[in-house]
Amino acid sequence: MTDSRFHKQHDSISLAKIYELLSVSLPTGVDKDRLFTNVSTLKDGGASSIALYHNTKYRAEASTTHVGLCITSEATAAHIAKGVIILVHPKPQRAYALIAQHLYPTPTAKSFIHPTAVIAPTAALGEGCSIGAYVVIGDNVELGAGVAIESHTVIHDNVKIGKNGRISSHVTISHSIVGDRVMIKPGTHIGQQGFGFHMDEAGHFDVPQLGIVIIGNDVQIGANACIDRGSLDNTIIGNGVRIDNLVQIAHNVYIGDQSVIVAQAGIAGSSHLGRFVIVAGQVGIAGHLNIGNGVKIAAQSGLMRDVTDGDTVAGSPAIPVRDWHKQTIALQRLIREKKHAK
Amino acid sequence: MTDSRFHKQHDSISLAKIYELLSVSLPTGVDKDRLFTNVSTLKDGGASSIALYHNTKYRAEASTTHVGLCITSEATAAHIAKGVIILVHPKPQRAYALIAQHLYPTPTAKSFIHPTAVIAPTAALGEGCSIGAYVVIGDNVELGAGVAIESHTVIHDNVKIGKNGRISSHVTISHSIVGDRVMIKPGTHIGQQGFGFHMDEAGHFDVPQLGIVIIGNDVQIGANACIDRGSLDNTIIGNGVRIDNLVQIAHNVYIGDQSVIVAQAGIAGSSHLGRFVIVAGQVGIAGHLNIGNGVKIAAQSGLMRDVTDGDTVAGSPAIPVRDWHKQTIALQRLIREKKHAK
Amino acid sequence: MTDSRFHKQHDSISLAKIYELLSVSLPTGVDKDRLFTNVSTLKDGGASSIALYHNTKYRAEASTTHVGLCITSEATAAHIAKGVIILVHPKPQRAYALIAQHLYPTPTAKSFIHPTAVIAPTAALGEGCSIGAYVVIGDNVELGAGVAIESHTVIHDNVKIGKNGRISSHVTISHSIVGDRVMIKPGTHIGQQGFGFHMDEAGHFDVPQLGIVIIGNDVQIGANACIDRGSLDNTIIGNGVRIDNLVQIAHNVYIGDQSVIVAQAGIAGSSHLGRFVIVAGQVGIAGHLNIGNGVKIAAQSGLMRDVTDGDTVAGSPAIPVRDWHKQTIALQRLIREKKHAK
Repeated sequence: MTDSRFHKQHDSISLAKIYELLSVSLPTGVDKDRLFTNVSTLKDGGASSIALYHNTKYRAEASTTHVGLCITSEATAAHIAKGVIILVHPKPQRAYALIAQHLYPTPTAKSFIHPTAVIAPTAALGEGCSIGAYVVIGDNVELGAGVAIESHTVIHDNVKIGKNGRISSHVTISHSIVGDRVMIKPGTHIGQQGFGFHMDEAGHFDVPQLGIVIIGNDVQIGANACIDRGSLDNTIIGNGVRIDNLVQIAHNVYIGDQSVIVAQAGIAGSSHLGRFVIVAGQVGIAGHLNIGNGVKIAAQSGLMRDVTDGDTVAGSPAIPVRDWHKQTIALQRLIREKKHAK
Repeated sequence: MTDSRFHKQHDSISLAKIYELLSVSLPTGVDKDRLFTNVSTLKDGGASSIALYHNTKYRAEASTTHVGLCITSEATAAHIAKGVIILVHPKPQRAYALIAQHLYPTPTAKSFIHPTAVIAPTAALGEGCSIGAYVVIGDNVELGAGVAIESHTVIHDNVKIGKNGRISSHVTISHSIVGDRVMIKPGTHIGQQGFGFHMDEAGHFDVPQLGIVIIGNDVQIGANACIDRGSLDNTIIGNGVRIDNLVQIAHNVYIGDQSVIVAQAGIAGSSHLGRFVIVAGQVGIAGHLNIGNGVKIAAQSGLMRDVTDGDTVAGSPAIPVRDWHKQTIALQRLIREKKHAK
Repeated sequence: MTDSRFHKQHDSISLAKIYELLSVSLPTGVDKDRLFTNVSTLKDGGASSIALYHNTKYRAEASTTHVGLCITSEATAAHIAKGVIILVHPKPQRAYALIAQHLYPTPTAKSFIHPTAVIAPTAALGEGCSIGAYVVIGDNVELGAGVAIESHTVIHDNVKIGKNGRISSHVTISHSIVGDRVMIKPGTHIGQQGFGFHMDEAGHFDVPQLGIVIIGNDVQIGANACIDRGSLDNTIIGNGVRIDNLVQIAHNVYIGDQSVIVAQAGIAGSSHLGRFVIVAGQVGIAGHLNIGNGVKIAAQSGLMRDVTDGDTVAGSPAIPVRDWHKQTIALQRLIREKKHAK
């Protein structure tokens, strides 16, 4: 059950409306005016709750649930307790998300500028922006319509942010051009000077970091992440990319559209990721690599070589996932053999 | 030796008082009024210093130390230089900590509200709170008595923090209920929207994140850590849990009482950890796993399966620690065999 | 090409001046007055661009580049397209950096104190300091001449920062003595209480963290990094050390001069690193280890033992890099053998 202090609910929704929103025809023998008031887990919900069941890890909960309505797939519908209205959908997760968004619409920030915000006179703010307490906005910054910037965030000189951006607290953005509908969670820093230096017998010396960061539309970036600006080429984050918490993106990295970078992964300088790449948690990608479209990289992998389109890799150093599974089995065999040898 | 500019010292302590505080009977032939003025390492201390010796890595230092008093265990007492008063205690670390706390009491924040703090009129602050410069406190926030919030921290609407909380600078807390005596170090973000979306051929779509974060009593959370709120279930941090710097806790994670999560570890969504679990540094735990009570997970391990109560695991993928040791040895043998084969 | 909105260019530079700055004699048959206006990649530059070519991964780009001048090494000069002026230098990266620094000088912060800064009357600021909006500076803080502190940063009581420090936004520094010319990127926290507690059947108990952090001269620290203060000994960062984003340095760690710690690496308590050590990305170093001078640690390695001067190690647990390569090859053979066995 959701906590109404933190999540304001729109109103209840009728069974007929749910089926209509999902373009599914209402089954016979159900009360089309029955009202549902919340989304819930299979375990916690009651007669007016809507739940999702798609992960068979939760089969036991599905078979004993008391929710009123369960959204599920054809393959898993049979697991659900009697008495529950079962809504079968080809994409049950998407269907659930749509209903949840309807019941709990994202609160929109009111248009206002907190009197403590320090905004350069040369900055241009679009209509309906919302600027929190202690925000600092530099010279020539351009914010599109409807941008919301939460308290304590710093937008440095010349940065542009497209319309409807949602920038949380304690963020800094410098040397960057940001697209529309970009969400940045708290504590993330974008555009700072990268780790750009060389080392020889005479010591370390800095290489000027002369690029910027370009972020596409519909990007979401987690909390306490770091995206360094390019050293000469730019650091580029494609449209629809999702970046999780504590991720490190070094200078000159290119991330293709719709790719997903899970928490604590790190991508070293000048590596190029294609579209729809999935980088799982704590992965490390060395510098100057080419990772093709649709590549999947298992958690904690360490990539030291290019990966071609569509491949799945695992391990450190990363190898094709099939070989990695064989390696894991071979290692287990090795332990057993040594046991017998004793 | 401690630097008195940064660590204010209470006063000196007599030998009799030390033994009394630790409930150990004073040995014969010592001057019970002898005064000690500081705690120190074995190497740096002098006649008025108190040191701890419990890690045999420092045996050489113990045998040549010039400290006046050394707190140690029965097993290690014989390593200590002649002339040092030796205080044998069954829990030497705890004994040392008690004496150090006595000599250097934690400074308590004065009750005050900095004039630059932005506090919603509907927020309720308990007695004796201390609110630093540029702190932002939202609507309906409730702070217990004696809560200290350092400069620049943001507490979002409806958050509750129990008594005697110590929240450092540049922290954000939203969608959370926090217990008593909770310490949060700088730069940590709690309660933000998690990495909750799905992906299909039609692209990514957000799943509303409708849970909260519930933090128990006596919890300590390090710097630059991230704890996302639940997606529907809540993210729960049990009583007495210790979380180190740069740790990632995803939505719906449950961490049982007294568990310890070391730096840079990451726990993926919906995993459940029991009580007294130890997660070492840089460990990754996949989503939807059950980790039993008292489980120990070695540094850099990658968990992909459930772990039963009391087990110790290591490796990526993680296996029982005994097998992991055997695997390490078998791999070394494999290298040597290949050498001979050449 | 650099974006002139974000990177102000000094002026153009003549060929003669470039050769003079690098102490290389001008070749015959070139126009010594020819002007260059920017640095660029091999791919993007034109006749007035200066590029660096040193990494043979970019050989194809070198052979077709249209830049006017290319700085390179003797070994790689032959790869470069006809018509390009080739400047051979024994240290091409250093030569490129020098020219780039000349063309794009680092902007210097103007001396000013923002009216919103909260500065304790007992703090002592050197000449020419620059203090941003909402900065908080505590009692008895000492800043050397020319220190620039960006908005929202908090310097706690008694901290000293040497001359010409550059501290970005959202940083906190407490319990620390910082040298000259130190750069700290946004979101980094230094001097907080470390993960110092012990655990026994009676529960966790805190050990007072009574040391400080001492940072040498010419140190650079990345974004969202954490450096905890010592527990009794101090945490020490030597001269010229470079620390990347999201790095964890625990209490009592010692890092020798000129060492380099790449992103997301973590060093546990009381470990001692020598001079010129290179710790690659996502490395974990256990506590109480001795890592010699000039040691190189490959990415994602996990160190559990001391390493002697000059060694290179890899793997988790880390082993000499030669053995690690052999192990990788042996594992591949193992997979193939199992395949044949079927």
